[in-house]
Amino acid sequence: MANTYDFGLVGLGVMGRNFILNVADNGFTAFGNDLDEEKVNALIEEGGDSNKVNASTDAKTFVNALSTPRKIMLLVPAGKIVDVVIESLLPMLHEGDIIIDGGNSFFTDTDRRESYLKKKGINFFGAGVSGGAKGARKGPSIMPGGSREAYQHVKPIFEAVSAKYNGEPCVTYLGPKSAGNYVKMVHNGIEYGLMQLTSEIYDLLKKAGGLNNQELHQTFAEWNEGRLQSFLVEITSEILAQKDELTDGDLVDMILDKAKQKGTGKWTSQNAMDLGIPVPTIDIAVSMREISALKEERIKADKLYDRPSPETVVKGSLVAKAEKALYFAFIMAYAQGMHQLADASKEYGYELELAEIAKIWRAGCIIRARLLADITDAFKADKELPNLLLSQAFVDKVQSTVDETRELVAYGATNGIPLPGLSNSLTYFDAYTSSKLPLNLIQGQRDYFGSHTYERTDREGVFHTEWEA
Amino acid sequence: MANTYDFGLVGLGVMGRNFILNVADNGFTAFGNDLDEEKVNALIEEGGDSNKVNASTDAKTFVNALSTPRKIMLLVPAGKIVDVVIESLLPMLHEGDIIIDGGNSFFTDTDRRESYLKKKGINFFGAGVSGGAKGARKGPSIMPGGSREAYQHVKPIFEAVSAKYNGEPCVTYLGPKSAGNYVKMVHNGIEYGLMQLTSEIYDLLKKAGGLNNQELHQTFAEWNEGRLQSFLVEITSEILAQKDELTDGDLVDMILDKAKQKGTGKWTSQNAMDLGIPVPTIDIAVSMREISALKEERIKADKLYDRPSPETVVKGSLVAKAEKALYFAFIMAYAQGMHQLADASKEYGYELELAEIAKIWRAGCIIRARLLADITDAFKADKELPNLLLSQAFVDKVQSTVDETRELVAYGATNGIPLPGLSNSLTYFDAYTSSKLPLNLIQGQRDYFGSHTYERTDREGVFHTEWEA
Repeated sequence: MANTYDFGLVGLGVMGRNFILNVADNGFTAFGNDLDEEKVNALIEEGGDSNKVNASTDAKTFVNALSTPRKIMLLVPAGKIVDVVIESLLPMLHEGDIIIDGGNSFFTDTDRRESYLKKKGINFFGAGVSGGAKGARKGPSIMPGGSREAYQHVKPIFEAVSAKYNGEPCVTYLGPKSAGNYVKMVHNGIEYGLMQLTSEIYDLLKKAGGLNNQELHQTFAEWNEGRLQSFLVEITSEILAQKDELTDGDLVDMILDKAKQKGTGKWTSQNAMDLGIPVPTIDIAVSMREISALKEERIKADKLYDRPSPETVVKGSLVAKAEKALYFAFIMAYAQGMHQLADASKEYGYELELAEIAKIWRAGCIIRARLLADITDAFKADKELPNLLLSQAFVDKVQSTVDETRELVAYGATNGIPLPGLSNSLTYFDAYTSSKLPLNLIQGQRDYFGSHTYERTDREGVFHTEWEA
Repeated sequence: MANTYDFGLVGLGVMGRNFILNVADNGFTAFGNDLDEEKVNALIEEGGDSNKVNASTDAKTFVNALSTPRKIMLLVPAGKIVDVVIESLLPMLHEGDIIIDGGNSFFTDTDRRESYLKKKGINFFGAGVSGGAKGARKGPSIMPGGSREAYQHVKPIFEAVSAKYNGEPCVTYLGPKSAGNYVKMVHNGIEYGLMQLTSEIYDLLKKAGGLNNQELHQTFAEWNEGRLQSFLVEITSEILAQKDELTDGDLVDMILDKAKQKGTGKWTSQNAMDLGIPVPTIDIAVSMREISALKEERIKADKLYDRPSPETVVKGSLVAKAEKALYFAFIMAYAQGMHQLADASKEYGYELELAEIAKIWRAGCIIRARLLADITDAFKADKELPNLLLSQAFVDKVQSTVDETRELVAYGATNGIPLPGLSNSLTYFDAYTSSKLPLNLIQGQRDYFGSHTYERTDREGVFHTEWEA
């Protein structure tokens, strides 16, 4: 059995087991490793032919079972445990072997590991995997970063197991070091934005239009046939149709409105601030999860304040407007994320190709959407495009949906329905497309109290005023 | 001259020079130190009597001139240079001496320095100083954190030099370790929010009401006589009246609309995300500075899109509404900052008293405002108040201004005038006071694609659904 399996995987949770079965389905032999004997046995049983899929709790058996250069993927929780697994494998590996971290590791951790392992002759990849459990089994989107040369060994397997869009694999070499983890982080940031937006539109349709769950289900299902077609719109439709097993009602009404987070959205926002790139649709999605967690305070506050009763709107026209607003805001969320990637690529030397990234997001991943085909085309047409909003192809899409977005944001403000994702998407658009913003006043204030100086509109240089007061 | 001066100060820039002259004005003797001979000589000259104010480029002369325990304040740029100055002083100091970092150091740097110096018997304070150059000279707000015992040595001097509000000094011992720097960081975060809000209101009055600079000047001046009374409203009024020396126009129109930042607003947002506390008014103020910096892209984008021409509004009623909206949004900015402080206090063990913090912000600092007297009272009345919005005293203030805020946010959305600070303040209010938010859908989505589980509205526990799809 020594040195015969094509691919190794440590961490046989749902994602790991599914990924390894996917590898096997595609004609590669794979060997799993986990400390939990139950998981090891479950995989062996599910794999059927042990010449194709095998597993062991013993790390040495595992490492010896793999053909060289070894390709070992880790699907374990991000953090300390990744380092522990790496250290335990290291004494058994040979120069040229490859470790692939498939989790959501923070990108600077990946940089540290990559540089540490390079010195020991081991190629290290950070490869974000998106698509959830089902994606891992049937075809995820994979975002690998690391050594371009070493990627050639991994490429055939990743291309085989990944999702396909029109026959093209949803995986490609993205760039050196932590490029893969970084791209996956921003993917998740965009995901936060899209999720917040769908939840707002669901709320708006319910409160303003009086749509019931069945009508909401149908609305999202219909939208999923059009330009909004996307995984998140699709599952929203399905969630709205799900019956509750414990009561007679619909499950969506029984789920508590406290949203949790695992950190990747927060990291996206925090790092965007370090880069100086505005991502307000993502920022507010993070804030809304935080506010949602303050359930007890919200209940108290609700009792203290009167808020307007939403004025009812005609269903049909509301649904049509909501479709436009959601499309508009989805574009803003992708525009912000792509902008962040463009800047991070310069800052961290990733040499990212944005068209390639949009391309591998077209299927398999959580933010897959019809829109990504257009985004791919926009960045193919202009590799140096600084922002999606500057693509001529997007001008029409935005211009034809912005008026309805304005109307709904105004409606939400007037009627006390919080639509922060929508309104931040709109103000992002309005600010980004304003040649003149009132921040001249802010520079004046900064110079006034802190002598921070300012630039002028009519001549070059840096100026300070002795303000009369 | 040995061991006679009460107070030492390293870094004789504008802030340092002014602070030391302020110390001397209040009857303490002070000694300055700077590598720059010109600055040293300038201080000696301005100080007049060298028995009261003296200075030297030589660190040894400086240290020996101070009475023990030595009280040495650093007013040097945050970062590496603080460590360099500390290391250079250290060999000359004795146990019990006190170093006070008066800059905007990141709070974890302060923790590191405090713990390092404690081992060497030196007391280290992080003490944010707010008020700009004029504040340093005439009375700043000072936010010290460190050892409570050692603070007794510094207290008489800080209380004498600080600004006074109804005779009460705008300084108090805030808490251990980096409590002072942390409070100053959040102060600056709130400052970012207030500055963004005033700039939006200025823009709105100009574009929607057609107010010219003179009318804008008068409007802010009048507001500064009422409940909006605050340093930032006051200087906004003055900035709008300032003539340009290089042209015949008003200076505000000649200042380029690219706002810079030095990081404290960004840190506030990033750290709020780490704590899980929503501060969307501060977040968007950071984003808007970033968008403002993209001037060249904004000019390009402006040409590609049509935006509505703002519908003109009757001046008088617009000004009255804007006053209410600005008041409403100021409350939201303070509420968010205080909420962050309350949570940070638990997380980092600062034992902050929010009433004391609001109290020392009532005069001297950049965010001083009449509102802070009310905020002080609210936290005095209830030390455990989780959020200002839950204070009965604030319910009326908010309730009586929210309708006009709704109207203006709706106007901005409809007419393409970005009012992101205002709209994020409104959605913060609407979300925080909603007992039910649509984030049940987000938890459903998370469970659908990632098996992240959810809680239920009708029973305890953690649930997962095998979604039919």
